[in-house]
Amino acid sequence: MSELTHETAPRKLSDIPTPALVLDRRKLERNIAGMQARVPALGVAFRPHVKTCKSADIASLMLMEEPAGITVSTLGEADYFLGYGFRDITYAVGIAPGKLAAVGELMARGADMKILLDEPEAAQAVSEFGAARGLAFKTLIEIDSDGHRAGVRPGDAKLVEIGRILTQGKGSRLEGVLTHAGGSYGCRTVEEIAEIADRERAAIVSAAETLTDAELPCPTRSVGSTPTATFARTLDGVTELRAGVFCFHDLFQAGLGVCGLDDIAAAVLATVIGYRHASDQILIDAGALALSKDRSTAASPQDYGYGLVVRPGSNPASAELIVDSVFQEHGMLQSRNGAADPRDYPIGTRLLVLPNHACMTAAPYDRYHVLGEDGAITDLWPKLTGW
Amino acid sequence: MSELTHETAPRKLSDIPTPALVLDRRKLERNIAGMQARVPALGVAFRPHVKTCKSADIASLMLMEEPAGITVSTLGEADYFLGYGFRDITYAVGIAPGKLAAVGELMARGADMKILLDEPEAAQAVSEFGAARGLAFKTLIEIDSDGHRAGVRPGDAKLVEIGRILTQGKGSRLEGVLTHAGGSYGCRTVEEIAEIADRERAAIVSAAETLTDAELPCPTRSVGSTPTATFARTLDGVTELRAGVFCFHDLFQAGLGVCGLDDIAAAVLATVIGYRHASDQILIDAGALALSKDRSTAASPQDYGYGLVVRPGSNPASAELIVDSVFQEHGMLQSRNGAADPRDYPIGTRLLVLPNHACMTAAPYDRYHVLGEDGAITDLWPKLTGW
Repeated sequence: MSELTHETAPRKLSDIPTPALVLDRRKLERNIAGMQARVPALGVAFRPHVKTCKSADIASLMLMEEPAGITVSTLGEADYFLGYGFRDITYAVGIAPGKLAAVGELMARGADMKILLDEPEAAQAVSEFGAARGLAFKTLIEIDSDGHRAGVRPGDAKLVEIGRILTQGKGSRLEGVLTHAGGSYGCRTVEEIAEIADRERAAIVSAAETLTDAELPCPTRSVGSTPTATFARTLDGVTELRAGVFCFHDLFQAGLGVCGLDDIAAAVLATVIGYRHASDQILIDAGALALSKDRSTAASPQDYGYGLVVRPGSNPASAELIVDSVFQEHGMLQSRNGAADPRDYPIGTRLLVLPNHACMTAAPYDRYHVLGEDGAITDLWPKLTGW
Repeated sequence: MSELTHETAPRKLSDIPTPALVLDRRKLERNIAGMQARVPALGVAFRPHVKTCKSADIASLMLMEEPAGITVSTLGEADYFLGYGFRDITYAVGIAPGKLAAVGELMARGADMKILLDEPEAAQAVSEFGAARGLAFKTLIEIDSDGHRAGVRPGDAKLVEIGRILTQGKGSRLEGVLTHAGGSYGCRTVEEIAEIADRERAAIVSAAETLTDAELPCPTRSVGSTPTATFARTLDGVTELRAGVFCFHDLFQAGLGVCGLDDIAAAVLATVIGYRHASDQILIDAGALALSKDRSTAASPQDYGYGLVVRPGSNPASAELIVDSVFQEHGMLQSRNGAADPRDYPIGTRLLVLPNHACMTAAPYDRYHVLGEDGAITDLWPKLTGW
């Protein structure tokens, strides 16, 4: 990205102040290539979710062709990516009417914004606000494909009611339907994920048919989550696929069978700062803020505590330590199988912590330290933080 | 703080883009006044921990007299506060030798830095690095008062060994001993906290005696945690007290009996964006990043999920909703006692979420929206994020 000002990167992992977010470029590119190979086979457009990476450099690697769209989870992300020339933006969190003025400002700056809602009162508010401002908000209706979070069930009469409000009002335009198969995160096998993917597809196709049967438009039929994007057998009737965490993967995705441990591209670099000798534990300078308090692997086949600890350059499958507990800026490591010997980890030792949930762990960092083929840092990629 | 550039604040809670961090100034000042009243009664100096607030405005309110010191958890905080004129800084996380160059740079800029360690090898590294650079690092030895995290036990022969290394080397100076009674976070009664506080005090006094008996200096004898600072019966033999979260308090501190729900000064402002009708749940635009995934009240007498939800201006004791589950940018609310009626919470309703753990929740925000007496926003106070 020529627009980005890249500071001069430290040359080695040992030069980076810790804690720091490190990104293995080879794994990142391999993960992205894998998803990019699936998309044409499924016959859909790809609209990567950039809430995981929050980075224009990485979003550029994920996009497949121009014009290509992205998915965001905050208006802060929309603003940031628009600044780097990403114009086609779907804001995939239910809109609050108080945010419409900000959406209008993004549109005035050239963004092709799509917003999301699932209640008639919200549709009414959008339509009225748009009409008052002389704007037509492109609006997707959120569909509930698995009872997981938000959305209208495909058979609910509210679907057509919302569609009519959006179509009849001058301030809004019905763009289509969108769902997120969050239920895929509770799966235990690849077959279960494929089942959820088919339910996700069926829900979106059914919702689209309900709208078109009512003579309402439905050009966009959007599905996605990294697990269902990875294992969907077909996306017939769907027009676009969203996924985000696939670019980094994480321990939770590995537990689902979506990736292997060696595919995890993002990690937190930390330094050994001490020990708790009574329990053969090792202290590092990465704690609850640096790793997040995400414990999603607690319910996985393998519980990695707050992260799996690997020596730079080594195979994560043979890693002997996990982060057992965290304090604000301390992490406490312990052996997975028996006692670790603190003498193997002198003070100052650098270690990488693979994240339970990459979206949560990456969020507070303002840059990626990009690791090249030979273990050297080749780039600093800035990223967005906050809202 | 005249050095700070304060943007023009929105005038009302309803004007603030959500999620946002809101700070009740009256409660903040009351919490600070309470701690400031205790300190002279205990006969110690006060060195507030600024890892909770990460704000020069708030640190200024906490300091009692000049020259007054602060405690930090990262060198990023040291750099930030030094920029606002806070020179007397204790970095209370075990030092990694790779960070000594950065500590030296802070000293060159005028910081009176104190660092922490608990291993002879670390003391040797500090002393050698200092000697090579012509610096004398003021160094505290971390004492383990409750087996909770790091530190040397007061009776351990390592204590004198470390003290000798720091005293004999030209590159270091033994400044004293420091402990953190993290064990107070596991207490169930005020009496138990007072017991832990006395154990903390006894450990630091014993460690100081061990050093002085060996004819080593020990001018600083530092203890602290918000619970023990609140309920210590005496701090005889201690020279300084550290505490941080007391300025905001949180649901976990309320569960310990350290504060009441109505003392919690920091909260996340969020907006209702939808519903999950099947389970009478309400969706807000504050999720895992905006609230943190901290679940420390899970083991408290009252489990508040990911936070207690209150209407602005209302009494938190009568709050009917908690945050039951979180996704990256969604929070799902449910009733504490029976079913909430979504009709009571129309889309666009503004709600405040009191945090389980204020340090974790405040961390990712770059500003405080300061709420005055009449419910109006009087100020924006910038704060530090990241490392």
